[in-house]
Amino acid sequence: MSVSTAAVDQSVCAPLTVLGADVTVPLVTGGYVTYAALDYAASAPALQRVWDDVAAYAPYYGSVHRGAGYLSQLSTDLFENSRVTVAEFLGCRADDQVVFTRSTTDSLNLLAAVLPADCEVFVFETEHHASLLPWRDARVTYLDAPRTPGQAVATLERALADRSPHGPALVCVTGASNVTGELWPVKELAAAAHAHGARIVLDAAQLAPHHPVDIAELDVDWVAFSGHKLYAPFGSGVLAGRADWLVDAEPYLAGGGASRKVARRTDGGVDVEWHTTAARHEAGSPNVIGVYSIAAACKALTEAGFDRLVDREQRLVTRVREGLAEVPEVKVLSLFGDDAPRVGVISFVVEGWNSSHFAAALSAEYGIGVRDGLFCAHPLVRTLLGSEPQDPGECGAPEAGPGERSEVGVPPAEGWGRSLNAIRVSFGAGTPDEHIERFLGAVRELVSKGARWTYRTEEGRCVPDRGAAQV
Amino acid sequence: MSVSTAAVDQSVCAPLTVLGADVTVPLVTGGYVTYAALDYAASAPALQRVWDDVAAYAPYYGSVHRGAGYLSQLSTDLFENSRVTVAEFLGCRADDQVVFTRSTTDSLNLLAAVLPADCEVFVFETEHHASLLPWRDARVTYLDAPRTPGQAVATLERALADRSPHGPALVCVTGASNVTGELWPVKELAAAAHAHGARIVLDAAQLAPHHPVDIAELDVDWVAFSGHKLYAPFGSGVLAGRADWLVDAEPYLAGGGASRKVARRTDGGVDVEWHTTAARHEAGSPNVIGVYSIAAACKALTEAGFDRLVDREQRLVTRVREGLAEVPEVKVLSLFGDDAPRVGVISFVVEGWNSSHFAAALSAEYGIGVRDGLFCAHPLVRTLLGSEPQDPGECGAPEAGPGERSEVGVPPAEGWGRSLNAIRVSFGAGTPDEHIERFLGAVRELVSKGARWTYRTEEGRCVPDRGAAQV
Repeated sequence: MSVSTAAVDQSVCAPLTVLGADVTVPLVTGGYVTYAALDYAASAPALQRVWDDVAAYAPYYGSVHRGAGYLSQLSTDLFENSRVTVAEFLGCRADDQVVFTRSTTDSLNLLAAVLPADCEVFVFETEHHASLLPWRDARVTYLDAPRTPGQAVATLERALADRSPHGPALVCVTGASNVTGELWPVKELAAAAHAHGARIVLDAAQLAPHHPVDIAELDVDWVAFSGHKLYAPFGSGVLAGRADWLVDAEPYLAGGGASRKVARRTDGGVDVEWHTTAARHEAGSPNVIGVYSIAAACKALTEAGFDRLVDREQRLVTRVREGLAEVPEVKVLSLFGDDAPRVGVISFVVEGWNSSHFAAALSAEYGIGVRDGLFCAHPLVRTLLGSEPQDPGECGAPEAGPGERSEVGVPPAEGWGRSLNAIRVSFGAGTPDEHIERFLGAVRELVSKGARWTYRTEEGRCVPDRGAAQV
Repeated sequence: MSVSTAAVDQSVCAPLTVLGADVTVPLVTGGYVTYAALDYAASAPALQRVWDDVAAYAPYYGSVHRGAGYLSQLSTDLFENSRVTVAEFLGCRADDQVVFTRSTTDSLNLLAAVLPADCEVFVFETEHHASLLPWRDARVTYLDAPRTPGQAVATLERALADRSPHGPALVCVTGASNVTGELWPVKELAAAAHAHGARIVLDAAQLAPHHPVDIAELDVDWVAFSGHKLYAPFGSGVLAGRADWLVDAEPYLAGGGASRKVARRTDGGVDVEWHTTAARHEAGSPNVIGVYSIAAACKALTEAGFDRLVDREQRLVTRVREGLAEVPEVKVLSLFGDDAPRVGVISFVVEGWNSSHFAAALSAEYGIGVRDGLFCAHPLVRTLLGSEPQDPGECGAPEAGPGERSEVGVPPAEGWGRSLNAIRVSFGAGTPDEHIERFLGAVRELVSKGARWTYRTEEGRCVPDRGAAQV
């Protein structure tokens, strides 16, 4: 039997199978529809392959590093082999360490905890809070939002050149913006950092799920990413890179696993000898399932052909951008302009609409899950919206507040230029074309016909107002 | 149809179904046997019920606190309801906070990070390293191992009375020893702490899986425990208790989720307004599956009848202790003596045996998984063994070393009194009687007839020496 090479080599592949693809959700207008998960930038669904691997392993789960039993040794091997898989996925150098954390936020907080004395940190205001805020014990220089990739490099170079004295320094930069999806010039920023004697850490939370990351080729010192955005939502993340700062610092957490030897001193105190491997910063029983799920995701993406997944996603990006461009009321947020390369993360505002109500209508009337808000990147979104810092922020746990009633479809006094927050649509390897088409159709319909329901804010959440008469 | 109340009320119930109950492992002597997981104190297998709940939820997984979509809102509710379930499971007071962490180690490191200025910490040398080591920024008083519960209370009272000046203080104590399984007089220690103006945190890592914990009834200020010992091995843990120190301190991790509002200042810096809820210390996307699995375990234990599970486990404890007592070469390690109440965690040494080889033989020849070593409680185990602090410790990740060959069944020059480490057998709600009987039979057989194989240490792991001629 002959197989057509054209069919095998097709650059655009089918979406990968993810959990929840068949889940149906109720519509406020009646009936059910399959859920369109378009909030990958917050958390992506698990790949079916990842789930299957976890399910196959779960009966063999055992204590890691700690047991004499067969399943403990199997689990230890599985855990340590996962470290190797992640190192290969990231193209790590031979002497890099791969430390397992709980998330990108945790990874960057770990790196913040191991900064050498008097380290300066340079970070653009455009970063996610996870990259913006962890550097609490360091002197931080916040760099203004650049408007081109070249301006980003020039801004960083100027700031690094200006510092004095010329001590240790770290640059923290995202690979792909969690708001605009735009790619940052990581390789050029790394070169600039190194030219000025600084180190650089890449926040790959939004890049790694959408694009191969090669730590050696980019020449960054560390990479951080999260399992839950990489189709492996089991509570683990990664910090990978240079061992020296990690080994020289006090352990991130103190406890078992990180300690090699603990002994009382004759004066009553306690002496501790810490590990110098990645275990140094992984105190406590590791999250074996979380770590294994990340390795399973790395393998699944690699085996599916990451380049083909990228090609497919780029087609969806183009489709969304072209579709949104056809609706004059929609303004897509961008730092670097239309030609900037980007991943499947696109934020926008709609003239005449409260973004939260627009997102609520997408969910309640179309079964589409997006996100509204400031996306844990308050300064960036405010810069893009041209709004003031005293605007109400929203990030993380909702806080109870009085219900705030608002009609949708009725333009507020201000246009989109003064929107307080935005809508973000994001997608990836598991997104079928239908979700994208449904989303674009819903945007067109909401803008042209208005919502069929009214919405109110209740305990920080925008929900259909079931007590109101509907249009 | 009439139901016998006697049958319904039986105090001894069947073991709960756990994952891996049917897993078979190869024996070095040939053939396969179902694995006997007797290392619950390190990590317990997942309850089938926990797995089923996780598997049922997984397709509905969505971004927590962050999305407008149906699954995001469902996941947020599930996450926050899990907090309520855990609060109920622990008998929390109305104004307690439940913070989700990654493990007990993480929980205690979090508490260490929120200690008020000049806080003194009091901790017995008998604690697990997770309780012993996190207090790096505090003045720590390590208390000598008591030999009775009463002596523990008296030792603590004396130490607290001696302190000056009389500033903030924290006592950290385990509920059940991870080495001896013995229960500590938590309520009395809490009363002593409070009488002297100190706070107390209960390390319930080994207590919560084996015994109901009531934070209000014990009158402790905080409780910490891990999911992976409570049949929910998905990478989450808990710190529950008083809100004041938590709210007053800087966030444990800095990032999204913990930050309510972030804004650039006119001077170029950044202002942050942090949440004052539990979210303050939960930056980054939460481990929804890990948290939900803990809630599922709490419900499963409660619904199975925790008291009946305790009764059954106590029967197994008695059986193990009586069985080991019949072997004169076995010495069970104990701080508080034979009459002390304890959970299903029992450590021992065997005269004439290297503990690591004994544990390796239990695995390789009987399919029984126990743990050998110092159990991340080096000072305690050395105190119990009467050995010196310069002995090689072992805790956590194995470190490569030269193969160290040793015959088993041949008594070393020293007796058990000078053993360098010990063997721990531990069990719980999923342990069938057969595992206990197999273990006791194996101990008797190994002691009376010796091992059928020789063992060697290879890369820190004790393994069958497949190159050696076997007896």
